[in-house]
Amino acid sequence: MPDKQLRGRIAVAGVGNTAFGKLYGNDPYDLGARALKEALADAGLSRDDIDGLLVSRIPDYQRFGEMMGLNPRFAGITPGQGRMSGASIELAAMAIHCGMAKTVALVYGNNGRTAGDRYGGEGDRYGSGGAGPWFPYGMTSPGAVHAIMFQRHAHLYGTRSEQLAHIAVAFRRHAGLNPSAVMRDPITVADHQASRYICEPLHLLDYCLINDGGVAIVLTSAERARDLRKPPVYIRGFAQATRLSESYVPPDDFWRAPLEAVAGDVYAMAGAGRDDMDALMIYDNFSPTVLFSLEGFGFCPVGEGGRFVEGGRLELGGRLPTNTSGGHLSESYMQGWALNVEAVRQIRGECGARQVTDAGLVQYICAAPLVTSIIYGKEPS
Amino acid sequence: MPDKQLRGRIAVAGVGNTAFGKLYGNDPYDLGARALKEALADAGLSRDDIDGLLVSRIPDYQRFGEMMGLNPRFAGITPGQGRMSGASIELAAMAIHCGMAKTVALVYGNNGRTAGDRYGGEGDRYGSGGAGPWFPYGMTSPGAVHAIMFQRHAHLYGTRSEQLAHIAVAFRRHAGLNPSAVMRDPITVADHQASRYICEPLHLLDYCLINDGGVAIVLTSAERARDLRKPPVYIRGFAQATRLSESYVPPDDFWRAPLEAVAGDVYAMAGAGRDDMDALMIYDNFSPTVLFSLEGFGFCPVGEGGRFVEGGRLELGGRLPTNTSGGHLSESYMQGWALNVEAVRQIRGECGARQVTDAGLVQYICAAPLVTSIIYGKEPS
Repeated sequence: MPDKQLRGRIAVAGVGNTAFGKLYGNDPYDLGARALKEALADAGLSRDDIDGLLVSRIPDYQRFGEMMGLNPRFAGITPGQGRMSGASIELAAMAIHCGMAKTVALVYGNNGRTAGDRYGGEGDRYGSGGAGPWFPYGMTSPGAVHAIMFQRHAHLYGTRSEQLAHIAVAFRRHAGLNPSAVMRDPITVADHQASRYICEPLHLLDYCLINDGGVAIVLTSAERARDLRKPPVYIRGFAQATRLSESYVPPDDFWRAPLEAVAGDVYAMAGAGRDDMDALMIYDNFSPTVLFSLEGFGFCPVGEGGRFVEGGRLELGGRLPTNTSGGHLSESYMQGWALNVEAVRQIRGECGARQVTDAGLVQYICAAPLVTSIIYGKEPS
Repeated sequence: MPDKQLRGRIAVAGVGNTAFGKLYGNDPYDLGARALKEALADAGLSRDDIDGLLVSRIPDYQRFGEMMGLNPRFAGITPGQGRMSGASIELAAMAIHCGMAKTVALVYGNNGRTAGDRYGGEGDRYGSGGAGPWFPYGMTSPGAVHAIMFQRHAHLYGTRSEQLAHIAVAFRRHAGLNPSAVMRDPITVADHQASRYICEPLHLLDYCLINDGGVAIVLTSAERARDLRKPPVYIRGFAQATRLSESYVPPDDFWRAPLEAVAGDVYAMAGAGRDDMDALMIYDNFSPTVLFSLEGFGFCPVGEGGRFVEGGRLELGGRLPTNTSGGHLSESYMQGWALNVEAVRQIRGECGARQVTDAGLVQYICAAPLVTSIIYGKEPS
């Protein structure tokens, strides 16, 4: 696990995002640039303060740097996969801790909606999925992989599609309180059940949105963050683990091994436990992932995720407010980036009608072949 | 610059490579896997000891992990650009220092020769170059960029093509002492001058080779490395800096700003100066880069690189043995990876007929829009 000495040593100084939706005529560079401008203004920093740059889904860090007039000391790119948002933030934290850079701009731009990007299959330029060798058997998209995983969960534990509906309903309710969210009209469990199958047993409303947008996060040392415009949001803990050895075959344990490994590490590093979390941001490419994440991180016993999410537990006012922005299902599919921004804004108390009272610790979780988690805190330890 | 506390804290435990050349029927995964097997054997480690994985030019870390049965804690991929070899090794060192992994496998595989990969232009899948907006004016490949840069150097300082020839001759002489090198027949300055122009003023013998091959490096903490099969080769210093703001236009100062920044940082971190280096490994995609690197790192005054490389100074037995493997010009174009392996083998004294006597400090340098340098040492400080 990351050295516990890193606890609270790195902080988020600024966050920014564009509008989300169909943004015709914008490429990922445009979207990333506009988000970065917002994040710099949020932090009270200028372009010249940036000495680290990590881009994701923006095709070329070099071209982005040229366009923005940046000459960072530390520069790089991560693949345009959702699991890479958390991994990128972790890389930036490592770079700052090691002295490679003082202030790292993390920049994401995605024009997949208007550009017609595909997820899975031959048109997939980002390696986002489909189950390689199983492709000829119909596993042609990430959704198909998650459908068969949920099918297995249902078989083993009796989980029902109606239980997934509670996730979609909760997140949509949150989106209704978020002016930036793309899908804001309330839905019911019945609406979820009546929505058409995309890949049975998953309905349309189990799927994330596909939108255009840009997101940026400015990370720096805790010391430096304390001198900037907004109060620092500290990175209390972070961790990652993989299950690559069976990554192209849906794992029968729903990535439990890496989820449990990351849970152990991230809580130990943060010096806080799952019961201390005031809100969760769970990577919800498809609604079943929320169940796998909750079970893998020990919020409920294995197999009981379906029952756990009933009764409004994930809603604002419930015990474990989750994806208060609306998440990927209802705000926008910014591949984890906007969920990390929402975590920061919750800690700062900037979330208006969807604010969690006294949010002191907010946890980001992404369940995938590479599992990541980051715990954000109002206090450094 | 990286925290000086990192000096000597990370070490190379194992290195490996495949044969180089035309290796029909191998994809980058095959080549990387075979190199990794060699590196693990070299370190006396098994697959299960690997808890970090960074691949480069291998298209997908996930598929490589599945193929090799790896479940690392830390995993990722860097673009298949030459500057990313040094940057990847630096990332792995950071990950180990931060506790994200104990033992990181860095794996590179390139079947570009038999697969007909292009560098620059529409068939370029790796972003390796050509000068974006200048493409219609003939800047269709990295070689064209370097040709115009050398033209400018010649104009400013009177540098001559015959001086580049001394670089090619020196590296070819070294390749003749390296059984793994692809081009081993001696050449003369006259041969260089008689070789055809590829992009005037650069001749065929100013260009790197294009070969298939795989390279792997296993990195771990210095403490752990001391218990392994081979003596540790310590990372004494590393640094990076960029000049992205003008990256697609050949810079008039030959990347001097980031080269000087990296020089300052890497020597300070290593606690050693340029005069302490027993050998250099300079990224030689095209021979002029060697001049730019030597000048930018202060081995000779600005503009005097041409005179500096005359008279055998870069040859074994000269003051500054450089690219003792033959480098990219004559061993194989493994995009910096094999140069780092050669640095390790020189420190270990494993280089046979091309061994530098008592090689205690060997420096890797890559001049590009993202400049990197790594200093390897027999002792940790």
